Amino acid sequence: MTQLQLIGVPGIPLIETGDDLAAIIAGALKASGQTLVDGDVVVVTSKIVSKAEGRWVDLATVEPDEEARRIAAEVGKDPREVALILSESAGISRMRRGVLIAEHRLGFVCANAGMDHSNTRADGEWRLLLPENPDRSARELRAALNEHFGVTVAVIISDSHGRPFRMGTVGVAIGAAGLPALWDMRGRPDLFGEALQVTEVGFADEIAAAAGLVQGQAAEGMPVVIVRGLTYPADEEASAADLVRPREMDLYR
Amino acid sequence: MTQLQLIGVPGIPLIETGDDLAAIIAGALKASGQTLVDGDVVVVTSKIVSKAEGRWVDLATVEPDEEARRIAAEVGKDPREVALILSESAGISRMRRGVLIAEHRLGFVCANAGMDHSNTRADGEWRLLLPENPDRSARELRAALNEHFGVTVAVIISDSHGRPFRMGTVGVAIGAAGLPALWDMRGRPDLFGEALQVTEVGFADEIAAAAGLVQGQAAEGMPVVIVRGLTYPADEEASAADLVRPREMDLYR
Repeated sequence: MTQLQLIGVPGIPLIETGDDLAAIIAGALKASGQTLVDGDVVVVTSKIVSKAEGRWVDLATVEPDEEARRIAAEVGKDPREVALILSESAGISRMRRGVLIAEHRLGFVCANAGMDHSNTRADGEWRLLLPENPDRSARELRAALNEHFGVTVAVIISDSHGRPFRMGTVGVAIGAAGLPALWDMRGRPDLFGEALQVTEVGFADEIAAAAGLVQGQAAEGMPVVIVRGLTYPADEEASAADLVRPREMDLYR
Repeated sequence: MTQLQLIGVPGIPLIETGDDLAAIIAGALKASGQTLVDGDVVVVTSKIVSKAEGRWVDLATVEPDEEARRIAAEVGKDPREVALILSESAGISRMRRGVLIAEHRLGFVCANAGMDHSNTRADGEWRLLLPENPDRSARELRAALNEHFGVTVAVIISDSHGRPFRMGTVGVAIGAAGLPALWDMRGRPDLFGEALQVTEVGFADEIAAAAGLVQGQAAEGMPVVIVRGLTYPADEEASAADLVRPREMDLYR
């Protein structure tokens, strides 16, 4: 029987700058009587990775330049916030009153360059940037978890993005280690033995979306989800950047 | 513990026009020693729904008009295939050599208006259209499964779509019954007690993506996946059309 389990890890505390995420995840797993097994995919929200990495910015320290002020006036946002968004972006994709969709320096196209504005910090006007290098964060977390549990797992750093054409946010992968973020299934036979035609699967995105279901079920935060039962080729060169459509292949930029 | 199960249903045969999908799914579940329980979400690929509904078209019967011939020459496709795509579409979204992205009459923007060209039929040049009304198909299947098992489940009809900005296909919902396709979580408190800001979740799409993981794991077709363990508000007015971003709210049309 083909069966997968999606297991939310309870008891992850609020994460502070400098926290050792691998140790915290390991502790929470043990406290709930669980462990990791070979092949598990550990999905971690970008939010707690950013917090552990201290990606906070105090808006009071931001000096918006002229471009930031102009855009802020156009979209109706705080100029300091816009300056931060621009500093994280390779460019603006679309803007409209209340909406600023940017191409993040990592290639993702998303609202506010992924800058978080809820669920973050109670003391003052802080903003939380995405992890500096989510693939690297995933690799480091994977190495630490592998060593701690004596297993080989994969790690995905997930975020929640809106989409053109479709309503509602869904989980997507912005960092990956140990599995193919984009899985090329071309050449696999279909039911009649002919090669499949459309066969590049957004594997890490489907995993992040599945984990999003568990996160959405939790009354409180559930930032770590284990996906158990998947079979996938090992990929030591994994990168969520593989999921970013190159500009020349994108008909909607 | 927050835990979900994704259960692929083995033993679904190749589906023929007129087949009773509910009876076939019920039989396959029983043959593998399983049943349905309250709250289960039954995810069924649009492909087998289309097959059961006899949505085959023999290309030999299609007479392409002038517009179809013109577009076919531009994108390098069979004019009869283009004529079929146009007949299923409200309009063309983008085209380029080898690529024809259409707005399906149901609102979805996807390659070839969702017309399938693999894994379908060995005898000649047939094409399989999407179900005529996937929400209705979902409602009917749900009613039959509820009656058969004496439970209340939800049903999603899934398809696999490419995306702007991102590489790889992911599972999406094109029909839904019994659960909110788009789940509005606004007003739910976050960790500091403030209301969440971005909180419309593409719930049925995340479920379809999760089911896509199981489908991708199967060496042969695995067109029915049970998602067990979700809690969601009942929605007797469910429609996957809620996931279609209205044109006036879409910055990328």
